[in-house]
Amino acid sequence: MTTVPPRYALLAEGRFELHDAKTAVGMLRYRPERVAAVIDSTHAGRTAQECVGCGGAVPVVSTVEAAERAGANALLLGIAPQGGELPEPWRATVRDAIARGFDVVAGLHQFLADDPELAALARQRGVRMIDVRRPPAARPIAACRAAAVDAFVVLTIGSDCNSGKMTTTFEVERALAARGVRVAVVATGQTGILVAGSGVAIDAVPADFVAGTAEQLVLEAAESADIVLVEGQGALHHPAYSGVSLGLLHGACPAAMILCHQEGRTELRMGAAPPVPLPPLTDVRGAAEAAAAWVRPARVIGVALDTSELGAAAALAACEQRGRELGVPATDTVRHGAEGLAEAVLAAAQRSGRAARAASPAGQGQGRTA
Amino acid sequence: MTTVPPRYALLAEGRFELHDAKTAVGMLRYRPERVAAVIDSTHAGRTAQECVGCGGAVPVVSTVEAAERAGANALLLGIAPQGGELPEPWRATVRDAIARGFDVVAGLHQFLADDPELAALARQRGVRMIDVRRPPAARPIAACRAAAVDAFVVLTIGSDCNSGKMTTTFEVERALAARGVRVAVVATGQTGILVAGSGVAIDAVPADFVAGTAEQLVLEAAESADIVLVEGQGALHHPAYSGVSLGLLHGACPAAMILCHQEGRTELRMGAAPPVPLPPLTDVRGAAEAAAAWVRPARVIGVALDTSELGAAAALAACEQRGRELGVPATDTVRHGAEGLAEAVLAAAQRSGRAARAASPAGQGQGRTA
Repeated sequence: MTTVPPRYALLAEGRFELHDAKTAVGMLRYRPERVAAVIDSTHAGRTAQECVGCGGAVPVVSTVEAAERAGANALLLGIAPQGGELPEPWRATVRDAIARGFDVVAGLHQFLADDPELAALARQRGVRMIDVRRPPAARPIAACRAAAVDAFVVLTIGSDCNSGKMTTTFEVERALAARGVRVAVVATGQTGILVAGSGVAIDAVPADFVAGTAEQLVLEAAESADIVLVEGQGALHHPAYSGVSLGLLHGACPAAMILCHQEGRTELRMGAAPPVPLPPLTDVRGAAEAAAAWVRPARVIGVALDTSELGAAAALAACEQRGRELGVPATDTVRHGAEGLAEAVLAAAQRSGRAARAASPAGQGQGRTA
Repeated sequence: MTTVPPRYALLAEGRFELHDAKTAVGMLRYRPERVAAVIDSTHAGRTAQECVGCGGAVPVVSTVEAAERAGANALLLGIAPQGGELPEPWRATVRDAIARGFDVVAGLHQFLADDPELAALARQRGVRMIDVRRPPAARPIAACRAAAVDAFVVLTIGSDCNSGKMTTTFEVERALAARGVRVAVVATGQTGILVAGSGVAIDAVPADFVAGTAEQLVLEAAESADIVLVEGQGALHHPAYSGVSLGLLHGACPAAMILCHQEGRTELRMGAAPPVPLPPLTDVRGAAEAAAAWVRPARVIGVALDTSELGAAAALAACEQRGRELGVPATDTVRHGAEGLAEAVLAAAQRSGRAARAASPAGQGQGRTA
């Protein structure tokens, strides 16, 4: 058992620069102090910054042994593959980490602690296997309770999977916190949970309890915050994950939504399936606002664009164009900061009459004691 | 272990006439030959028919012992409570049944086979604990594959929970089978699974795999059927279960939908929560058709009304009025038969060009060898 705080080796073998390494990238961006090394032999010798644009000097190495030399004392599986299975070639790496006394943290649907071989090894070596996606035992049933909290609740939604919902959530949190606003994040995915330190992987919850679990998380977060930012999941147009998105929407009962989209993406991320075109963003907004209204009306108040595939000028132009198209502030929070979206959240909170402390100019920066 | 076919004692203590005894009522209506007795001491001495309008002379008794005298050799928990927990007073009854050598079948979210006390007793006595809601180990990811089957796929949807989706599915199946149509049912709830003999309780599946599981079930059913009827779950306007409904809709990719509604109901069934008004049926249809179109367009082609709270004349008037309001055939399948809906399904299949064998008048009644 690790008695010192974990310093992770992020396992991303062969996939560090692919889009499914989002757990690795999320940790590097928001919790770099917890990361000692990235394991991907195809990029060994480079830094995280060189590979994915964040993480600074964190080295990319080839083996658990090299990660240990770089200071790692725990292994974190840094991918979130569709289906959530352990890539079979990684089994040997997990065994190696256990043998070195590393705790192992994973966000897979396939729970490592339930794997007979790995669980036996972990028991023998006295290390922990932590499956952050394991759902809680509670079985709450939603009933619109989240619509009644005093806090102003904002949900990030997406035009697809992996479209920046988690990143947007944390970037807006940072911008609001910098203004002294009492803000809380409800993390609903494995990476968000690792960054935030708590939360539930909502996509692993039995379907009947997705909304109820989201509701509980919002109620808890609202106890000590004026703005609650809920990390969204999936997309209403995604054939595989739309149910997760709707359950989360109706459980969290947000007062407003921020729409996240990767500029340049034209097809839904569907794994091996035939291509499905991404709907126009106006349709994505229309669907989300219609679906919200089935339980509690909520509007899209801002757009968060991932412009990482565009040059600097094209990125600015895309934000301007999307802002005009949808009539709300649009920005790339990583590239241009989340100030505009933080202001949109505060303005919407003020219009709603909720979270008056957070929203009023006088209250800003003064915290609870104002 | 029961080596003869099961004859169930349906446990519904104190709740046989309440709406959450739907598993008991479903078995009595569609599998009466499998039922020896109903256990509900508050109605002991009456027949099932007298209590719930189906099940004929099946006796209602007070104890497992009396059910055994009536021929029962297995216990089936006949309720589907919100949250899916074992009512604590029923524990003693389950113990009694195990002691008598009964297999125990349950559709709860709380799996009886995982209950340490009951599992130990069952092991000692050599009886089986069968949790029909336990999800399969597979983790399929949906990808619109169900939209490509040759069969014509119809999903029952509802204005609420417990609004007749399962009943409608089986009544339309019966009417189509009587015409010689090759029809298959995809059961997605605990009662439907017990009646159909197979299926998956879709609301207990981890949320990420709801659509994928529904897709798999449709693909399998379509292999040997021209019409596939998918039992719906929940309702898109229901704050607790909308995610289940949408995942099932996008996984099953139906070509058409039948809208189920209980006449006279004005509020969603929300357990202990504050009342939420039921939306107008035209809104329910609009939401379902809009949501279907996010992945694959489908229209509502018929309405199935539960008019059990109305007199005979009012029931007929309600069907006529709903038919006019929505512009599609409307009927109470239990009261008036499912012929009209079966015809609507066949006509829609013909219009679609799918399932030509089922839809063509020449093909009807001739089966596969035609």
